Amino acid sequence: MEKLLKIACIQLKVGTNKTENVTRAIEKIREAKVKGAELVTLPECFNSPYGANFFQQYAESVPDGETSRRLSEISKELGIYIIAGSIPESKVNKIYNTSTIWDPNGNLIATYRKMHLFDMGMPYVSGEIPFKESDSLAPGNSFTTFDVKDFKIGVGICHDIRFDEFAKVYRKKGCNLLVYPSAFDMKTGALLWEVSTRARANDNQCYAVSISPARNENADYLAWGHTMIVDPWAKIVQIAGSEEEVLMADLDLSLVDEVRANIPIFNQRRSEIYDTIEK
Amino acid sequence: MEKLLKIACIQLKVGTNKTENVTRAIEKIREAKVKGAELVTLPECFNSPYGANFFQQYAESVPDGETSRRLSEISKELGIYIIAGSIPESKVNKIYNTSTIWDPNGNLIATYRKMHLFDMGMPYVSGEIPFKESDSLAPGNSFTTFDVKDFKIGVGICHDIRFDEFAKVYRKKGCNLLVYPSAFDMKTGALLWEVSTRARANDNQCYAVSISPARNENADYLAWGHTMIVDPWAKIVQIAGSEEEVLMADLDLSLVDEVRANIPIFNQRRSEIYDTIEK
Repeated sequence: MEKLLKIACIQLKVGTNKTENVTRAIEKIREAKVKGAELVTLPECFNSPYGANFFQQYAESVPDGETSRRLSEISKELGIYIIAGSIPESKVNKIYNTSTIWDPNGNLIATYRKMHLFDMGMPYVSGEIPFKESDSLAPGNSFTTFDVKDFKIGVGICHDIRFDEFAKVYRKKGCNLLVYPSAFDMKTGALLWEVSTRARANDNQCYAVSISPARNENADYLAWGHTMIVDPWAKIVQIAGSEEEVLMADLDLSLVDEVRANIPIFNQRRSEIYDTIEK
Repeated sequence: MEKLLKIACIQLKVGTNKTENVTRAIEKIREAKVKGAELVTLPECFNSPYGANFFQQYAESVPDGETSRRLSEISKELGIYIIAGSIPESKVNKIYNTSTIWDPNGNLIATYRKMHLFDMGMPYVSGEIPFKESDSLAPGNSFTTFDVKDFKIGVGICHDIRFDEFAKVYRKKGCNLLVYPSAFDMKTGALLWEVSTRARANDNQCYAVSISPARNENADYLAWGHTMIVDPWAKIVQIAGSEEEVLMADLDLSLVDEVRANIPIFNQRRSEIYDTIEK
């Protein structure tokens, strides 16, 4: 049974009140637990609107802040793993885009700080809204993996999913599940959300999950939605629309084993000619 | 005008007669020229049926063999570039799966030998047809790039497209067009052909083209078809069905420039933390 995992991806509706956002997330985590979830995932920036002008105001320290405290409580109460999307984390005059990961005893077992900040380039195409996370956020510098049952999980946040080498490092670390709390916009969402998630699953013959906030038509920033769970054959197992939704799936490592045995691309890499290295 | 390139992808119907296969390819190259093509591409194994039991019989030396001689003649006659899919190449007791590239003067300007051979693993899933190229072919060990106008082109063959690191090396070499003569089977074609081609374009913000033979219902090996041309936003510009077809598109490097300027992921790679290296 260690090779099976019931995962829930919460496409959360996020508003402007931090306490209410966390309360809503906890309600949805309870709903996922009732449905049998063992691991619950949340989207990027789930306690705050997404935008450079919000990060400072909503940021809190980890694990001392309100959001961490409440996540610890609920994971312990329900006996459940939580990959808590991300929140703006304040630490020594910097703000990070940080995912906190909680075990069923309420312990913070890992954190991940977004490594690739989303900076649009210059010049912007006419009609585009420029966006530059690095004006308000500091980047993380480390990969984060942890184990849930026999699953080895690697975490990235949103723009990280664009970087095939980042995922390859996780594959080399033995990951069989990649989790990307995200918040793609409407343009790159329509163009690149599906192909990016499926590519990471396909390239690394693993499960890949990307979790978006629900689209909030009243917000400045419109999220694409379409939270999805992709299997190691790059098939979309579950996909949401744009509304709030709890997406559920049973992940099965025997399928990872089957795909990797059938077409063993990881072993067929010509690592004597090229390789992806960690420095 | 050096930033524009009219490309033709010939989804060729391949039979059992080598001379007829080459004649048919040349007919289609003429057709592409009439349509204005400057660069014509052919599928993997275009002068031979695809299968371990055929490679020895159909193999010839490069550039002394019949196929090379005729490709040289037609490229010169028409004043056209040809990426001649691949053929079984015999050289010193080995057979390679080799692409020959011809300039408008009939010169062989590059060759590429398939680096990742398609070997299915053990155990095979029931109902699968096992396939092991390395029983009959030797792998190449080199990347191949060349220039056509302002396009820098990198070549891979079929299974090579599964390897994101292989494409990343080409991106690091400055490629803005990746060309994959291929022959995916019906199962992996349905599952992985589109996502693989789009992923290589998306990850590297370049054009990516994958060229299949037409499906020949009389052959042992059924090719997926669906030759496609994908732009640097990962959009499918042109896609074939399963029948013989000459697919045409105008490639425009200003779109590559636009995509890379908008979201400069190549410069956002955290190469101080990880990198793809050539050894």
